[in-house]
Amino acid sequence: MTVSGDYQSEMRVLDAELGVVAPKGFRASGAHCGVKRKRNDIALIVCDVDAAVAGVFTQNVVRAHCVLLNEQRVASGAARAIVANSGNANACNGPGGYDDAVAMTRAAASHLGIAPDLVLGASTGVIGVRMPMDKIEAGIAAVCAQLHASDAKDVAEGIMTTDTYSKMFAVEFDLAGGKVGRIGAIAKGSGMIAPNMATMLGFVTTDVAIDPAVLKAMLARCVWHTFNSISVDGDTSTNDMVIVLASGLAGNETIAGLETKDANTFETALYNVCLRLAKEIARDGEGATKLVEVRVSGVAPPKQLLDAYAANNLALTPEQRMGFARGVGKTVANSPLVKTALFGNDPNWGRILAAVGRSGVQFDPETVEIRLAGHTLYERGKPTPFNGYVVSDAMNRKEVVIEIDLRQDGGESATVWTCDFSYDYVKINAEYHT
Amino acid sequence: MTVSGDYQSEMRVLDAELGVVAPKGFRASGAHCGVKRKRNDIALIVCDVDAAVAGVFTQNVVRAHCVLLNEQRVASGAARAIVANSGNANACNGPGGYDDAVAMTRAAASHLGIAPDLVLGASTGVIGVRMPMDKIEAGIAAVCAQLHASDAKDVAEGIMTTDTYSKMFAVEFDLAGGKVGRIGAIAKGSGMIAPNMATMLGFVTTDVAIDPAVLKAMLARCVWHTFNSISVDGDTSTNDMVIVLASGLAGNETIAGLETKDANTFETALYNVCLRLAKEIARDGEGATKLVEVRVSGVAPPKQLLDAYAANNLALTPEQRMGFARGVGKTVANSPLVKTALFGNDPNWGRILAAVGRSGVQFDPETVEIRLAGHTLYERGKPTPFNGYVVSDAMNRKEVVIEIDLRQDGGESATVWTCDFSYDYVKINAEYHT
Repeated sequence: MTVSGDYQSEMRVLDAELGVVAPKGFRASGAHCGVKRKRNDIALIVCDVDAAVAGVFTQNVVRAHCVLLNEQRVASGAARAIVANSGNANACNGPGGYDDAVAMTRAAASHLGIAPDLVLGASTGVIGVRMPMDKIEAGIAAVCAQLHASDAKDVAEGIMTTDTYSKMFAVEFDLAGGKVGRIGAIAKGSGMIAPNMATMLGFVTTDVAIDPAVLKAMLARCVWHTFNSISVDGDTSTNDMVIVLASGLAGNETIAGLETKDANTFETALYNVCLRLAKEIARDGEGATKLVEVRVSGVAPPKQLLDAYAANNLALTPEQRMGFARGVGKTVANSPLVKTALFGNDPNWGRILAAVGRSGVQFDPETVEIRLAGHTLYERGKPTPFNGYVVSDAMNRKEVVIEIDLRQDGGESATVWTCDFSYDYVKINAEYHT
Repeated sequence: MTVSGDYQSEMRVLDAELGVVAPKGFRASGAHCGVKRKRNDIALIVCDVDAAVAGVFTQNVVRAHCVLLNEQRVASGAARAIVANSGNANACNGPGGYDDAVAMTRAAASHLGIAPDLVLGASTGVIGVRMPMDKIEAGIAAVCAQLHASDAKDVAEGIMTTDTYSKMFAVEFDLAGGKVGRIGAIAKGSGMIAPNMATMLGFVTTDVAIDPAVLKAMLARCVWHTFNSISVDGDTSTNDMVIVLASGLAGNETIAGLETKDANTFETALYNVCLRLAKEIARDGEGATKLVEVRVSGVAPPKQLLDAYAANNLALTPEQRMGFARGVGKTVANSPLVKTALFGNDPNWGRILAAVGRSGVQFDPETVEIRLAGHTLYERGKPTPFNGYVVSDAMNRKEVVIEIDLRQDGGESATVWTCDFSYDYVKINAEYHT
């Protein structure tokens, strides 16, 4: 799988609003049950058959009850449904909170007539407040009663917090034997006003037949390059998760390895779906006025590390090799000085260079090249002459690219997505009261 | 030396405006030479005799020409003067920039009749723009002609950028044999509007007689606990430095080790002077409305690390042991979500807990205790009931304390200082144009 930037593939984009019901075997619904004042706050995704499942979860030490529950349940490799709510994150609620997470999945299982162990849960919203289980259970009854395969808009809305729009995507692609596979997905991003912290949820469905272990490996790889390569403010949540369910109803020969043509087709499509949603999350960051893509290249892993690995007959994984470039990108993407300059359309290469300098990577400042919105601002240890008005104008767009090249031998590339830092970020996060 | 929080010592606080001329043997002056429009932009500190010198410099890979020059010169252990300018950081200017840094110290040396190698330089201001050396050299002539021992206000003003007030401090303390030692200091903080990035400069003078190697060890320790324990926004500069000059004119028996009574008295005073200025820098962070003290306790070094060290008959230094607690504090202090909540007087323990959770330290969320402005908000894995209005009111002060206790066996403590994150931070950093 090639993962540098947007990948050209043979996939066809479907109506985005199909979302998670685009693939065969999935139904879904969303409803309002009263945890939030008005908007949908409960969502259900159901597979008609036992689906292969894989999930990745928050790396925060503090993890919500649903995260702990799901980690156990996805280990079996099979699942049938995801029940999710917004308005309450059910995090940091003690043993009672865990019981509520279990009860939520049990209620869905009971209505659907399936084993509770096959149901996963997800919550996003305020933390440290017990779930209003009467409302939640009434909501679960409602979404179980109105399952449909028409579109996934009500589901996507059911997991939103302060997202300004719902995030959906669906694609299809050709597999061996004349079969057609589909992937659908919904996500929510960094709305933190009510929940106290960003929560990123991504739910992906597919009808491709695939071994759960292969699915897990592919998901980990795709998430590394997409959802784990975005950052709104460097803060992670107790509730972050991405789950993929595979119904196997596309009729393809089961993908049992990483290297077949079908495996490559599917992983490329999965990567593109994850990338699309990840970029939408960055674009819709709190108070954001623009999507910022930070492309870092020419960053070699430290020689000491390579030597130490070689001495033990070990090799770095591609992600470990690229991690140093991504680290540079994340330091730049999270720098408040860089982000405020982006908001102000200020071609401030000094802030970018200073962030690179504190990213933990060793390099020669004389060889760095910095490009911003298509203009070279710094190279060979010095700023290049540029017209500030022209560059500022080029930055005044909905999407801005920062390119940083450290020009090291054996250097790797990585891309990180973020947004700018505006008055509205402060407003949204300072004016809310717990 | 005890370094937990403000240290009670026998030192007596002097008139702050004496600053760097409080100790015997120092003269200084500041002037306006036209790099900046109106305010003082050139400053000189001179010792009448060869002073013992120690310095600590930015950890950023990208380092200003004056930093590279000073690192060489302090290695000798002796210096006579520091010449500093504001308005231009003389960073990222290629070989010509280094020549300018050398020329600046040579001009001062020539007027003062001393060896150029004994003069240190410091610059803060815009980067990537060559220094107006004609103005700078005229300014150096002026400050050399008007040296005085009266007060250091004009000097402190000469190194300011967007600091809203000048930062000075002076103390004295008793040494063995009826001698009296003094320490004076000036500093500038995180004004980033013109310079493109924060630069922290601290200049400390003392008349205590002390071996340069001991001075260096003490300075490193004191800076770790003070200047390196503050953060306005996590960004570091190409020009950061703290330099201490010791004239030895107090008449004390030269401090030649770390463990004598005089050594302890001096290091404690040095620590307190550094702490005072570091806290002023945090308090005067861009757009800040309050000083925030993050006290972290009960953080043990990872068992694996301790075992690995023990297996090799090594022990962690106190700073290495405390580094894990400080890392937790810095993650909290740099979290935009925590900082905006502090600006909004929002008792948002969830954001604090989430920041602790992503700080890289492993811990049991069930044992964490979080206190904010004197109120316990979270313990034993759950929020405690609290009145949001009461806590919000307690946060609406000029100084707010966050206490985080992970309650680990063998746990260490560390304190970090920062400020809140307001609309004015965005305004200052977004509305400036390069």
